[in-house]
Amino acid sequence: MGVEEGGVGKKGVCIWRWKITMMVLRVLALFATATATVVMALNKETNTFAVATIGNTPIKITLTAKFQDTPANVMFVIANGVATLHSLLMLALSFVNHKHDLKGLRFLIVTMLDMVTIAVVSGAATAIAFMGELARNGNSHARWNKICDNFERYCDQGSGAMLASYIGILFLMLVNMVNIYELKRLNNFKNVITA
Amino acid sequence: MGVEEGGVGKKGVCIWRWKITMMVLRVLALFATATATVVMALNKETNTFAVATIGNTPIKITLTAKFQDTPANVMFVIANGVATLHSLLMLALSFVNHKHDLKGLRFLIVTMLDMVTIAVVSGAATAIAFMGELARNGNSHARWNKICDNFERYCDQGSGAMLASYIGILFLMLVNMVNIYELKRLNNFKNVITA
Repeated sequence: MGVEEGGVGKKGVCIWRWKITMMVLRVLALFATATATVVMALNKETNTFAVATIGNTPIKITLTAKFQDTPANVMFVIANGVATLHSLLMLALSFVNHKHDLKGLRFLIVTMLDMVTIAVVSGAATAIAFMGELARNGNSHARWNKICDNFERYCDQGSGAMLASYIGILFLMLVNMVNIYELKRLNNFKNVITA
Repeated sequence: MGVEEGGVGKKGVCIWRWKITMMVLRVLALFATATATVVMALNKETNTFAVATIGNTPIKITLTAKFQDTPANVMFVIANGVATLHSLLMLALSFVNHKHDLKGLRFLIVTMLDMVTIAVVSGAATAIAFMGELARNGNSHARWNKICDNFERYCDQGSGAMLASYIGILFLMLVNMVNIYELKRLNNFKNVITA
């Protein structure tokens, strides 16, 4: 069964193509989640508002909107930071072992970690999506006023981070699909070999 | 290659065990997401508050908290409803075809749909988690007051729906893992057969 050793012939080529596709997708996912983390972590806007006038002297207050003010944003930074580390670790792992990664327990653990990462990052991105919607439009039922009219750049930066995070989820999903497709293809390939 | 036909011998038994495991997990996921959908869709609380007293006559207002008041809750109901339909469809599909489901494009499509469902439901559950946190504690930075002190049952019911949804995600993840494990196991099994 020369098939098992890999590295030569049609199967060898295909596995390299798969490995390179995986690495490219992982790097893209890494960049997207890293961007989301940094953009959100640097999100801070300070504005000065005139609240009243005594004589000719305007009374001003200075307010700062920071990402830490909303728990959902903190979770977003942590989730995307962990997703970035996850991509980095998986990339490092693909250099450590040059044998076929679809064997053994490792494939299952990697797939599970990918899936949990997708779920957590998707949760974080959707949470800030709805927090952003609330900040933009307010909620009259709960008497929560909109704040984005005063902190426009802050809100836009949050939206940018959200977008980067969703792009990261897309790449993480592609990683998972390519992984599973390769396992299936290998399965079918064995059928051909052994037929 | 009698292996391909399945249904007899060790492999046949294993495939049935896998099919039954999958069905049980899908039914559990279905119940969890259906519970989340119904509990949230029925979430409504009406309370009467005394706001002032004129002479001996108290002035009362009646306020109603409905799930539709918060966009995140609406998305939650839709996401969990779609996940329930997804589980139902996948269960129906597993009755339609008695051949091994790990073959062909179908496996990839089902895995992808499972993954997208996990991401969407996880997003919805996390969004209402943070909305619930906001309703319970308020956010002094944004001057959003807590509302759960006035609508305690409403908030508790929302938390219950969230919990059911997270349990549903857990089962959907197990479905995905069992699916991939079975594909891998079949792969290894073929190695044994053809060695």
